[in-house]
Amino acid sequence: MMGAVLLSEFATEIVVPVCAVIGIAFSLVQWLLVSRVKLNPERHASGNSNKKGYSDYLIEEEEGLNDPSVVTKCADIQSAISEGATSFLFTEYQYVGNFMVAFAILIFLFLGSVEGFSSKSQPCTYNKEKTCKPALATAIFSTISFLLGAITSVLSGFLGMKIATYANARTTLEARKGVGKAFIVAFRSGAVMGFLLAANGLLVLFVAVNLFKLYYGDDWEGLFEAITGYGLGGSSMALFGRVGGGIYTKAADVGADLVGKVERNIPEDDPRNPAVIADNVGDNVGDIAGMGSDLFGSYAESSCAALVVASISSFGINHEFTAMLYPLLISSVGILVCLITTLFATDFFEIKAVKEIEPALKKQLIISTVLMTVGIAIVTWVGVPSSFTIYNFGDQKVVKNWQLFLCVGVGLWAGLIIGFVTEYYTSNAYSPVQDVADSCRTGAATNVIFGLALGYKSVIIPIFAIAISIFVSFSFAAMYGIAVAALGMLSTIATGLAIDAYGPISDNAGGIAEMAGMSHHIRERTDALDAAGNTTAAIGKGFAIGSAALVSLALFGAFVSRAAISTVDVLTPKVFIGLIVGAMLPYWFSAMTMKSVGSAALKMVEEVRRQFNTIPGLMEGRAKPDYATCVKISTDASIKEMIPPGALVMLTPLIVGTFFGVETLAGVLAGALVSGVQIAISASNTGGAWDNAKKYIEAGASEHARTLGPKGSDPHKAAVIGDTVGDPLKDTSGPSLNILIKLMAVESLVFAPFFATHGGLLFKIF
Amino acid sequence: MMGAVLLSEFATEIVVPVCAVIGIAFSLVQWLLVSRVKLNPERHASGNSNKKGYSDYLIEEEEGLNDPSVVTKCADIQSAISEGATSFLFTEYQYVGNFMVAFAILIFLFLGSVEGFSSKSQPCTYNKEKTCKPALATAIFSTISFLLGAITSVLSGFLGMKIATYANARTTLEARKGVGKAFIVAFRSGAVMGFLLAANGLLVLFVAVNLFKLYYGDDWEGLFEAITGYGLGGSSMALFGRVGGGIYTKAADVGADLVGKVERNIPEDDPRNPAVIADNVGDNVGDIAGMGSDLFGSYAESSCAALVVASISSFGINHEFTAMLYPLLISSVGILVCLITTLFATDFFEIKAVKEIEPALKKQLIISTVLMTVGIAIVTWVGVPSSFTIYNFGDQKVVKNWQLFLCVGVGLWAGLIIGFVTEYYTSNAYSPVQDVADSCRTGAATNVIFGLALGYKSVIIPIFAIAISIFVSFSFAAMYGIAVAALGMLSTIATGLAIDAYGPISDNAGGIAEMAGMSHHIRERTDALDAAGNTTAAIGKGFAIGSAALVSLALFGAFVSRAAISTVDVLTPKVFIGLIVGAMLPYWFSAMTMKSVGSAALKMVEEVRRQFNTIPGLMEGRAKPDYATCVKISTDASIKEMIPPGALVMLTPLIVGTFFGVETLAGVLAGALVSGVQIAISASNTGGAWDNAKKYIEAGASEHARTLGPKGSDPHKAAVIGDTVGDPLKDTSGPSLNILIKLMAVESLVFAPFFATHGGLLFKIF
Repeated sequence: MMGAVLLSEFATEIVVPVCAVIGIAFSLVQWLLVSRVKLNPERHASGNSNKKGYSDYLIEEEEGLNDPSVVTKCADIQSAISEGATSFLFTEYQYVGNFMVAFAILIFLFLGSVEGFSSKSQPCTYNKEKTCKPALATAIFSTISFLLGAITSVLSGFLGMKIATYANARTTLEARKGVGKAFIVAFRSGAVMGFLLAANGLLVLFVAVNLFKLYYGDDWEGLFEAITGYGLGGSSMALFGRVGGGIYTKAADVGADLVGKVERNIPEDDPRNPAVIADNVGDNVGDIAGMGSDLFGSYAESSCAALVVASISSFGINHEFTAMLYPLLISSVGILVCLITTLFATDFFEIKAVKEIEPALKKQLIISTVLMTVGIAIVTWVGVPSSFTIYNFGDQKVVKNWQLFLCVGVGLWAGLIIGFVTEYYTSNAYSPVQDVADSCRTGAATNVIFGLALGYKSVIIPIFAIAISIFVSFSFAAMYGIAVAALGMLSTIATGLAIDAYGPISDNAGGIAEMAGMSHHIRERTDALDAAGNTTAAIGKGFAIGSAALVSLALFGAFVSRAAISTVDVLTPKVFIGLIVGAMLPYWFSAMTMKSVGSAALKMVEEVRRQFNTIPGLMEGRAKPDYATCVKISTDASIKEMIPPGALVMLTPLIVGTFFGVETLAGVLAGALVSGVQIAISASNTGGAWDNAKKYIEAGASEHARTLGPKGSDPHKAAVIGDTVGDPLKDTSGPSLNILIKLMAVESLVFAPFFATHGGLLFKIF
Repeated sequence: MMGAVLLSEFATEIVVPVCAVIGIAFSLVQWLLVSRVKLNPERHASGNSNKKGYSDYLIEEEEGLNDPSVVTKCADIQSAISEGATSFLFTEYQYVGNFMVAFAILIFLFLGSVEGFSSKSQPCTYNKEKTCKPALATAIFSTISFLLGAITSVLSGFLGMKIATYANARTTLEARKGVGKAFIVAFRSGAVMGFLLAANGLLVLFVAVNLFKLYYGDDWEGLFEAITGYGLGGSSMALFGRVGGGIYTKAADVGADLVGKVERNIPEDDPRNPAVIADNVGDNVGDIAGMGSDLFGSYAESSCAALVVASISSFGINHEFTAMLYPLLISSVGILVCLITTLFATDFFEIKAVKEIEPALKKQLIISTVLMTVGIAIVTWVGVPSSFTIYNFGDQKVVKNWQLFLCVGVGLWAGLIIGFVTEYYTSNAYSPVQDVADSCRTGAATNVIFGLALGYKSVIIPIFAIAISIFVSFSFAAMYGIAVAALGMLSTIATGLAIDAYGPISDNAGGIAEMAGMSHHIRERTDALDAAGNTTAAIGKGFAIGSAALVSLALFGAFVSRAAISTVDVLTPKVFIGLIVGAMLPYWFSAMTMKSVGSAALKMVEEVRRQFNTIPGLMEGRAKPDYATCVKISTDASIKEMIPPGALVMLTPLIVGTFFGVETLAGVLAGALVSGVQIAISASNTGGAWDNAKKYIEAGASEHARTLGPKGSDPHKAAVIGDTVGDPLKDTSGPSLNILIKLMAVESLVFAPFFATHGGLLFKIF
């Protein structure tokens, strides 16, 4: 025993679930506050009582405020979007559900076969003198935790979507009262999702660990090996959510824009556009549900990676439960920190003008990071001994508690830096996006060239930030350090998700305002919210990618340890071919997803054109378009097209591990990681920059911007082309890539016992 | 001694220079044949005597055939292009020359400091019992071979440019007689360059080895270590040639197109366009001179990598000179094989119709590969013992001669596969490019999305081909295997360069036809030649990238051996941060070069617009534009803009090696290699596909193509945007990336003695 822990085991068993419950309660309170905005025309007046002290600009009310027909219209549109999203998610989950069951059986069979389905106890993997539970138990419990992870992921995505579709019309209605009101509704709704997801993920993991412990008892090695299934389940689901949702939303978006904006010269979200409902549904199933599943997956995986490494370190060997649950304690404190942070946006300060939106969101990042640094210090002080040992590829490495604090802290602050850099490159308040907008003067080609160059350039600082975090945390605490650095970056996930989800909600709110025929004043307000949302979405993606890089590396390290290889030497042919093929996988994957979006968009374009050409009176607004067919096109395309990229990611580790063995697989993981992270960052920032360059021209808020506009000018048309190219980059390929790298790593870890025993068939034969 | 070698040392000393001289002689003969086409109007008739047996289509002569004014016009344009190119290259070489001298001093200082500039002999690096020449000698000879490599590279690029500008107008004039005649002139000129470059590179290397031997005597370790400077010199020069030339050509091309084609609706290469001369100069300084330097660099580096590894293997230890020069023997036979192959294109068969051009070029690849397989077998049989040992990171590994044959062969055939895949993805005879063309129906955005997806997809098979070559050659003969696999891929470099240089020559020929006001018939013929040229250019880039990947790996291995590290373990923080930062470098580099092209193009656009607006009668063809200002803009931009990316590549290994040490540097090299190769392939194929999609629509050769056309239609405009975006991708960023990965590897190898002694300052301090 190298030192005492201040927090008792009993206290830990109390603190974690209590924090989770606080998170859930807080999210319910936020929901309650959002629900005060009534979509029921009879009781519209209730919101007025809160009005006090706003500046003139904000209390300037629209004539339509007391017009019940607008409220009814909004409610109708909202229910159409909500129904579309619900029905798509059900269809998606049905298909993916079958796949998940099949994959669960595969996990059971592969892992069960390690010891020939024997139910006898066996010597432990890392400590051969002790006896551990049979491989069959690991097979069963891994399968269970896999399904648990998948279900929690589904829940995270689905609830997020429900909240977002509940909030979108309410944001629109509040926008009538002013931009500050609308901001609060959108932000609160994002917070509902953020807290629900963070707390729920923590609670399920906590309960699972405690339940599994009933069977495993003192065999913590087996217990936490089985728990990694939770991460795999979460990420598998997230992959399909991101890819399916991403294809859905961008097929609809690109299709709607190409005909509506470019050919017919009608505004975005115009109700005459047949693809407009599909487009708004897409925001909710892609950007909300997909992203929710994604970040839940990251969270689950980094926790699992930390736990599995800890289980073979001194915490695990000496059965120090509090220290063992350090990752969960970090997340618990994270919930409390985010709770306080949220109040800064919703209660302590008020947004009074458009230009205050972005700073308010940025402040959220800074406040949560500063507070969390204190939180980490406290948890590290009370939760871990002053000195302990960590498993380091065969050795035990001595780590001091202040070193562990630095590991978590460096991850947390690297996240903030990534967030700021992303903001700099994607917000139209700074020169990079303005330069891209300026390049639209000479047409779409220079816009695309400048946008691609911007994306490439935006990779530099985040990669250095990631590299430094890796170096610090790796040097101090080996793979455990990396895992907790990832957790550090994700510790403020509730706030991250809140500002991330805020974007699509504002986007939808704008759509609803347009469709409900509300005045351009309201549309301007929602557009301002939305422009900030593009930046926060990019920041959210930056977090997701940065944490994915760290998580994957931690999982990769755990996999290498579990597969009993002590080095991954680039200078062996087996590893090097893995490395170069692994670096190719993100390209293969992106090729598939981009092509899918392109093809689905072409189908959408044809359908929209057909409706404009064959439905009499559609352009004049006398006839209603057939929204359902467009929804069906997006649904069918995304369900069909998500299979091949999904299969590529899910099958690669299995095939490589089984036929080429663990060394080649290690190479593939490293290659996919270092190559994928670059494409992911550049794709999401390029897309964000193009979108905001377009918004910059449309808003015309500066002298320079006005020389490029207005809407419909040649530079604006060029900007629209850039925006459209960016759509699949930023919302389909880019964000899916971080799941690719995480998922392959966690899958390799889960299947490591099988690969270590039966892997490398091809080399065994020859 | 493990086996006798059939070819005596004396015979080797004869065979290599004789083959080189044959290559030079053959290239002079080709030049003589090209020079028969007279640019002197008085003696135009000389070409007619060859005319016999052509089909009707081909003998259909233009009325202008005997019109001396056309010939004079062509001659004038040619001399303008030639003068522009010469003056640019002189300016470029002047700047780069200063840099080279500075870098040469740096090499001397760094390497000299290894043993404190001591002129005393020292124990050898690998065999401590023997005595080797002092480190100071290595410093001096490395510096000399560096300068030699740089000068040879300059010569290769410059001569290539001279030939191309000599041939372009002649191709135009021959096009009056038919497509077959024009093809032969363009192809012969390409061959002049190919053979001159291959033979010259071989001869200089051979002479250098023999001269250095006079001093080094039996210290082959030191001798071949010093020789690697040749590769570094070649590649450093190539980097600036590629980047500078690439920026020059694309700034002019993009600028000319954006105003001429898009705004003013005048055809490509119209003499009224002020940027048209700069555009045509660009083809010669970028695609010809840059590419010549590049491939010479690849050739020099793979030879050096093989030699340096061989010097510490049984060949070197036992001083078996013939076996030692095996890499040079391969290249010697390659020259003979390519000579025969060339005859198939120029003498054995005749091109009779447009559709025969691509198959004829493809046949060149197949014939040279098949013949070379036999050539390799012979060289391996007579040149190396039946069994020998190869240095393998500390051990000596036994290799059989048939295994070595397979190493070279797998590289050669992997090159062919890469060539075919590239053709499939970039030729408009196949569905991928046709799909991209089809996506222009819905505008530029879908065109860009489909093009990017095509580029990503085109990476898959080449990477597998490279991975398999690496696995086979690595398993059989460690790093020596990789190096000779690269040599195998480059053994048919003369043919590769011939078909590659053919492209820009045809492109120029088309430009001259347009500018000289020749009939559209002639333009159609040169366009057909040019479309095939886009594909061959992409194939050439594929070869350059594939061989660069192998070469870099071999150099990387040699570096690791020289730096005395035995493993490069991904699972150490030092290596991993190198890996992820290395994988980022190609993005940083691409961001710089793309942005440079974009900015330079913007300036060009402004100047062209200014001239159209201010020069009266320019649009009507009554006034001549001011070509010189456009040439100056391109020159200034490329000279200024090539410095930062050049510095990034040249300084990274020095900084990383000096401050972070050899392990991090090894990580950087591996990361840059596996990431850069993917971007390079996808960028060059995407660009080639867009260019040919546009040509597909313009040519209107099929029912499908005609529904998209004609020139000026909306789909055609969308295709032009894609083409313009592709320009910097395929001709600036993409092809420079393979130099980036090679150059960093060879530089690390040259500086390895310094890094091994003084490197890693930062870790030594902390």
